Amino acid sequence: MIAEIIAAGSEMLTPHRQDTNSLYLTAQLNELGVQVAFKTIVGDNLGHLTGAARNAIARADIIIFSGGLGPTEDDLTREAAASALGVELRRDNTILTDLHKRFAARQMAMPPNNAKQADVLDGATVLPNPNGSAPGQIFDTTVDGFRKIVILLPGPPGELKPLFLQLVKPVLAATLPPRHIARRMLRMALIPESQVDARTAPIYKRHEDIETTILAGHGEIQLHFIAAKSTAIEAQARVDELAGLIEAEMEEAIFSSQGESLEEVVLLMLGLRHLTLAAAESCTGGLLASRLTAVPGSSRYFLGGAVVYSDQLKTTFTDVPAELVATEGPVSEAVCRALAEGIRRRTGASIGIGITGIAGPTPGTGPDAEKPIGLVYVGLADGRETRVKELHLTGDRDRVRWWASQHALELIRLSLLELQSF
Amino acid sequence: MIAEIIAAGSEMLTPHRQDTNSLYLTAQLNELGVQVAFKTIVGDNLGHLTGAARNAIARADIIIFSGGLGPTEDDLTREAAASALGVELRRDNTILTDLHKRFAARQMAMPPNNAKQADVLDGATVLPNPNGSAPGQIFDTTVDGFRKIVILLPGPPGELKPLFLQLVKPVLAATLPPRHIARRMLRMALIPESQVDARTAPIYKRHEDIETTILAGHGEIQLHFIAAKSTAIEAQARVDELAGLIEAEMEEAIFSSQGESLEEVVLLMLGLRHLTLAAAESCTGGLLASRLTAVPGSSRYFLGGAVVYSDQLKTTFTDVPAELVATEGPVSEAVCRALAEGIRRRTGASIGIGITGIAGPTPGTGPDAEKPIGLVYVGLADGRETRVKELHLTGDRDRVRWWASQHALELIRLSLLELQSF
Repeated sequence: MIAEIIAAGSEMLTPHRQDTNSLYLTAQLNELGVQVAFKTIVGDNLGHLTGAARNAIARADIIIFSGGLGPTEDDLTREAAASALGVELRRDNTILTDLHKRFAARQMAMPPNNAKQADVLDGATVLPNPNGSAPGQIFDTTVDGFRKIVILLPGPPGELKPLFLQLVKPVLAATLPPRHIARRMLRMALIPESQVDARTAPIYKRHEDIETTILAGHGEIQLHFIAAKSTAIEAQARVDELAGLIEAEMEEAIFSSQGESLEEVVLLMLGLRHLTLAAAESCTGGLLASRLTAVPGSSRYFLGGAVVYSDQLKTTFTDVPAELVATEGPVSEAVCRALAEGIRRRTGASIGIGITGIAGPTPGTGPDAEKPIGLVYVGLADGRETRVKELHLTGDRDRVRWWASQHALELIRLSLLELQSF
Repeated sequence: MIAEIIAAGSEMLTPHRQDTNSLYLTAQLNELGVQVAFKTIVGDNLGHLTGAARNAIARADIIIFSGGLGPTEDDLTREAAASALGVELRRDNTILTDLHKRFAARQMAMPPNNAKQADVLDGATVLPNPNGSAPGQIFDTTVDGFRKIVILLPGPPGELKPLFLQLVKPVLAATLPPRHIARRMLRMALIPESQVDARTAPIYKRHEDIETTILAGHGEIQLHFIAAKSTAIEAQARVDELAGLIEAEMEEAIFSSQGESLEEVVLLMLGLRHLTLAAAESCTGGLLASRLTAVPGSSRYFLGGAVVYSDQLKTTFTDVPAELVATEGPVSEAVCRALAEGIRRRTGASIGIGITGIAGPTPGTGPDAEKPIGLVYVGLADGRETRVKELHLTGDRDRVRWWASQHALELIRLSLLELQSF
């Protein structure tokens, strides 16, 4: 069984908007064991849409339309599907009554246009849509001796997703062989994708029944494993076995084996050790704090800190000696060390982080004038010792800032790994 | 002339990857006056790809393939296009020599597979690709009496974009009527899209020759205008005229008329007035500082501030009386006011911002326990007065935090508007 997804809407043929429903639908169909073989994006044009529908019915077994079920002249999915299938549209009185009720509830008369939302492919099952005025439809038919399942869904994701999940997926599952899916994801930070692949490919390639995907970006590598088996237990056992072998190979490079983000892992590890954290950020300008505080409940372990963007504030909030900034430059190992120690002392946190660097695009000034863009120092003070990492990052301002915050999180994680939790 | 874009590659039929080249190609084609009528995404399957190519040649005038020009068995675009067009592939000796040279330069022997990258549609023009091993092709032909331009481009954006811009666009431009494009974008914050549309639609609908697009999201509305005329001056005059009328209607709600972001506008306005800014953030946890410091050069006007996530730090860094926090609760107008005034005093900035709120998903504690999630106070102290806005935001933690930072930026902007620049 192969599927085609047709996204209807002229806005998705502009440079500004993209079809995203198909990503959700693809994930759902894959779980059922159905591969998506084609995606078509077509505008609000009856000829174009009907042609696309004809092609899809000829080449796919399951055809899902998203969008084009609204009340306007541009909403043409019903007409196109009917024409391509060679069936009539009949006006459904139950839907029509519901539509009138929706408008009455808002004390409005229904415009005549809206009645077309009650048009149903003759023989289709109506999928009531509690989140909008356009119901979906599922039409199970035979064309030239082949079974074709044609599904019409409204375009807004908040309507399409629950309709698919609650009313379409069970119908498709009932017609397909039973399949149970298990997934695992392992996450690593700051390690080259090529190195991960070189070390893990010999392992995951021995598990051909498990689909392995490596995704890389923003200083992180994700390894996704998906197994499909006839029982849920068997599927879970397979992905767990592979994940265990990869964990044994990559060891502490893996920060998360259940999908948690690096921020979440750091906060969790702080919690397990009854420790608190504070940060003094110069070049990242609050990015590290913002990432940590985006996690619900972070306030228990992250106290806050200072954004010491100006030289003056480095002294005001973290007691960095003004002479040190003047002689070494704000971007220096000594200032980074003083930031980490200063913020720890001033906030009373168990761990203090200091970050200072040149994010670009313009170079530093004064003693920093000759230092390269991308030079960043990340420091961690925990009361026993202060360690400072010197980084030479590449890329634009956003990338340097992001990677600096990523290095800070990874430095905290590795430092906490050394401390027993209790 | 209508175009179809075919993206070839099985990875774009997974839930993980999406075709994005088509957004770039669409923008480029639109500039030439060519509309994209269809986008097709198809996997690495010769039958599927050939069928998709046949459909495209039947329904579009310009057909652009992206991807599938590599050396592996899965790279089938050349074969599919040849089969759909009914032409032969001929092996191009110049390309073949270049391929051998590329490998020789890396002191490697070329694997036999790679020779297929020298296969060219018989009659096509080769587009040399300085950024990769797969050259592009343009094939200008006639099918059933209709002119068809078939273009093959490599998938990696870093190869596709320069090839299109330098070698394809000039060829297409030469075959199409001359057109010059002008664009303008107006940006507004925190105003409902429906209100913008109600007030501006009567104006932009009178300018039918200008394509107007409204995009909304993340607390911002963008109005995009595009005019295509036979001269650049005429096109610019048209979009400027419409932008001027919309500016007169929306007045100070428009924060940017040349595309700058809200952060950039705030920093620019601070610079024009020789003022500096600092922020004390509780619920946004550094997000405001992070947004401001993402702008190059922000260090001249944004001094930094404090992330006062814990109650203790509100006192340590901004001198908020501990009794005030205990009685009013950290999320209160009084604490917000004290944060704004305290950070201004402690940093010496011209303007101090205080933000405190309940981002959720868990409610506040102590005196804040009964306060609703989404309650946020944003305060601004400028030495003359301190103004505090009480907000009731909806949505999840990320949305509450983002909108709070957006309200803070807009509060700064509106407050600076009242001050003459000099």
